[in-house]
Amino acid sequence: MHPLIAEFLGTMLMILLGNGVVANVILNKTKGHGGGWIVITTGWALAVFVGVVVAGPYSGAHLNPAVTLALTLAGRFEWAQLPLFAGAQLLGAMAGSLLVWIHYKDHLDDTADPGLIQACYCTAPAIRNNARNLTSEIVGTFVLLFTIFYIVSNGEFGKEKTPIGMGSLGAVPVSLLVLAIGLSLGGTTGYAINPVRDLGPRIMHAILPVKGKGGNGWDYAWIPVLGPLAGAAIAAGVFLCM
Amino acid sequence: MHPLIAEFLGTMLMILLGNGVVANVILNKTKGHGGGWIVITTGWALAVFVGVVVAGPYSGAHLNPAVTLALTLAGRFEWAQLPLFAGAQLLGAMAGSLLVWIHYKDHLDDTADPGLIQACYCTAPAIRNNARNLTSEIVGTFVLLFTIFYIVSNGEFGKEKTPIGMGSLGAVPVSLLVLAIGLSLGGTTGYAINPVRDLGPRIMHAILPVKGKGGNGWDYAWIPVLGPLAGAAIAAGVFLCM
Amino acid sequence: MHPLIAEFLGTMLMILLGNGVVANVILNKTKGHGGGWIVITTGWALAVFVGVVVAGPYSGAHLNPAVTLALTLAGRFEWAQLPLFAGAQLLGAMAGSLLVWIHYKDHLDDTADPGLIQACYCTAPAIRNNARNLTSEIVGTFVLLFTIFYIVSNGEFGKEKTPIGMGSLGAVPVSLLVLAIGLSLGGTTGYAINPVRDLGPRIMHAILPVKGKGGNGWDYAWIPVLGPLAGAAIAAGVFLCM
Amino acid sequence: MHPLIAEFLGTMLMILLGNGVVANVILNKTKGHGGGWIVITTGWALAVFVGVVVAGPYSGAHLNPAVTLALTLAGRFEWAQLPLFAGAQLLGAMAGSLLVWIHYKDHLDDTADPGLIQACYCTAPAIRNNARNLTSEIVGTFVLLFTIFYIVSNGEFGKEKTPIGMGSLGAVPVSLLVLAIGLSLGGTTGYAINPVRDLGPRIMHAILPVKGKGGNGWDYAWIPVLGPLAGAAIAAGVFLCM
Repeated sequence: MHPLIAEFLGTMLMILLGNGVVANVILNKTKGHGGGWIVITTGWALAVFVGVVVAGPYSGAHLNPAVTLALTLAGRFEWAQLPLFAGAQLLGAMAGSLLVWIHYKDHLDDTADPGLIQACYCTAPAIRNNARNLTSEIVGTFVLLFTIFYIVSNGEFGKEKTPIGMGSLGAVPVSLLVLAIGLSLGGTTGYAINPVRDLGPRIMHAILPVKGKGGNGWDYAWIPVLGPLAGAAIAAGVFLCM
Repeated sequence: MHPLIAEFLGTMLMILLGNGVVANVILNKTKGHGGGWIVITTGWALAVFVGVVVAGPYSGAHLNPAVTLALTLAGRFEWAQLPLFAGAQLLGAMAGSLLVWIHYKDHLDDTADPGLIQACYCTAPAIRNNARNLTSEIVGTFVLLFTIFYIVSNGEFGKEKTPIGMGSLGAVPVSLLVLAIGLSLGGTTGYAINPVRDLGPRIMHAILPVKGKGGNGWDYAWIPVLGPLAGAAIAAGVFLCM
Repeated sequence: MHPLIAEFLGTMLMILLGNGVVANVILNKTKGHGGGWIVITTGWALAVFVGVVVAGPYSGAHLNPAVTLALTLAGRFEWAQLPLFAGAQLLGAMAGSLLVWIHYKDHLDDTADPGLIQACYCTAPAIRNNARNLTSEIVGTFVLLFTIFYIVSNGEFGKEKTPIGMGSLGAVPVSLLVLAIGLSLGGTTGYAINPVRDLGPRIMHAILPVKGKGGNGWDYAWIPVLGPLAGAAIAAGVFLCM
Repeated sequence: MHPLIAEFLGTMLMILLGNGVVANVILNKTKGHGGGWIVITTGWALAVFVGVVVAGPYSGAHLNPAVTLALTLAGRFEWAQLPLFAGAQLLGAMAGSLLVWIHYKDHLDDTADPGLIQACYCTAPAIRNNARNLTSEIVGTFVLLFTIFYIVSNGEFGKEKTPIGMGSLGAVPVSLLVLAIGLSLGGTTGYAINPVRDLGPRIMHAILPVKGKGGNGWDYAWIPVLGPLAGAAIAAGVFLCM
């Protein structure tokens, strides 16, 4: 599989499953309605697991421009490939969001609150505060990338270094890391920690004929893009100093 | 163990544990009553884990005609064996459903709602809509099979390629995959993603003297059969194009 | 470590953690109060995990006379050792129960319902029905032992066959199996699936000066002893026929 | 990475994620509000996972003076290094607590109950009783350290003995152990089981300008310091007798 196809498909699956679990928990009449934070965070962690299992051997399974940026800054990825990876990731996130819309359309149509509908696409802060929301995304993504550097050093999360005999279990540590961040740090902004995870579905929210939708929250959209990139850059810098 | 016996026993254990967790959560007076979506989805994921541990080394642990179909279409399984595997799986699902009836009979008898009783056997959509329910089962099964192809490529989920030294942990990735699908995509139709998981227990619901039962939902029964088979075929096709 | 010491300590830790999680969820004023079925079943599964990690390399970590019986019937353990193992397991269960009493005493004292107090020691059926409760324990223990035979065949859960490089992860499959049984089959009788898990703490409930305790439920006590032994024997028999 | 830097960073990440999950569950308006005991205990377990993944290959990932003390008493660590490790751990815990304050400040400011605010920093007993609270911390830490000795013997949780090919999965067993202790034994005192986990954030609670904070609970502070050290010493002693 071509690395860009792998990034597209892996990100698509991740967003389908990640935004899918949000839809399942918050939309009306779903079987997972009211499942709570443990359902949402476990669903997102396993969304990453599935994306990494599929894309890992072919592209290293970045699925996130912040990951690509950090690896590039650390000298483990080529600058010229970065925009291509980011583009494939963004398109994958949009495709995944489209699938969530198709999958949960009857439940989206049955839900009246525009805030809940929007939450099936992109993040929104629990308490709006630009500086603190940005900090929150920086902290979450710093933990993600800084730890990923050590997971990669230990031999997982990359096509080149998977320990012999681990198979798909090599995708488990990064999935547990995402679960950790969601459980512990996701309470403020909903842990985008990935520019395309937020931007891709937000674009779909804007262009799809979503019944009963409100605004697209463009005034907030820069935070889950800039914050993760900044957090990733800081993580790469600290890692290189170690 | 003969492969057909392995498919029968693995599917039986899977349905016993899978429909067992539904019974535990929704029937009256059970100790797990009201345990919620995290209990149901984790129970189903581990039901698959147990089935795969037992059947894996002997039959590859398909436990699902959609898995068998996808592997056959991808050239990894023989057409002549497909009906035999599907038959063993169906009988295993019926036997597992019988055991759930025996195990939870006092609680089934104590529950008045025919919809809850039926839910201990087969799936029903949260919002009935033939086209969308079918799509939902196709999407869920596509994710299942498409990802399984890459799990198999990584060396697990099949008797021939289990990495040395992994033992039963080789059944963990497919179990996490089923958990991912349940958490994220199960909110609409209850994620049959397996023709016999739905049809076998539905037949048992029809023929067992279940106290207080309502209709068998035969008008819906074709969707969790056709949807998973279609999703599996699409997954095989996309995989072969990669 | 001597195998009998290993069985004693492993079972003690298992009961301390297993009955500890019940106490945490059901007693008054605990921090885990009302945590629900997912907390109880995960706690019990990890109680087994800890017991197996400690005892595994020294005794094979049976921690359960039903396990010892099944392995003996299958020709994998010596009859002469069986009563010694069962005795060490029973004493370990009593010691673990004593530690739960010490650990949660203020919360036990603060809880008025004798049924809740007893539940921190031994099991009780959700709906009393001797034949069905016995069947329920047989089914649960059959699944436990039948699957353990295949886990052992795959190389875990025994001191002799741990795959190279797995370390304590070798205790994960049996822990997931116990979680599966608890989630799915524990709704009826509370899944003793182990004679000493029920009998040891029941003896402690009888002899300790537990404030506000009611009866010891001796009329029910034979079921979680006989059921697991019968289920284990059936599992060994079916396994040998495969 | 220098071992002391590793202890500092690992403990910082652990406290950021561990106290972060408490904040997410108990503070006002967070997305994880009311997530319950399963969220808190899973979050703490994964906080340890992340700390061990980062620090493990460089310092052995003690992250806890009780761990360092037990390993020293068992002859596996040098006395001269103990105060240095403990100091790095304490500073790491303080830094992690500072990050939680920054991350969740708007939610801390929005929460009126000083007890809830304090709980985002340090532990407090559910029922105050010095002797029993101390016992509770001793029991919890005994289980932690006694089991860790056998996890280390099995080859994980230390830089020197990680099984070949396990990578970051080697941090999973100790994470499951912490989850077990939290679920089962954490109901009484909130399972500090680590002197710096309690003392470091308590110091930060005292010196940071936390809005609406109450007392620092200094009268209780000796228990989560002394209890874990005593439990660790007992675990080392029992281990050496085995």
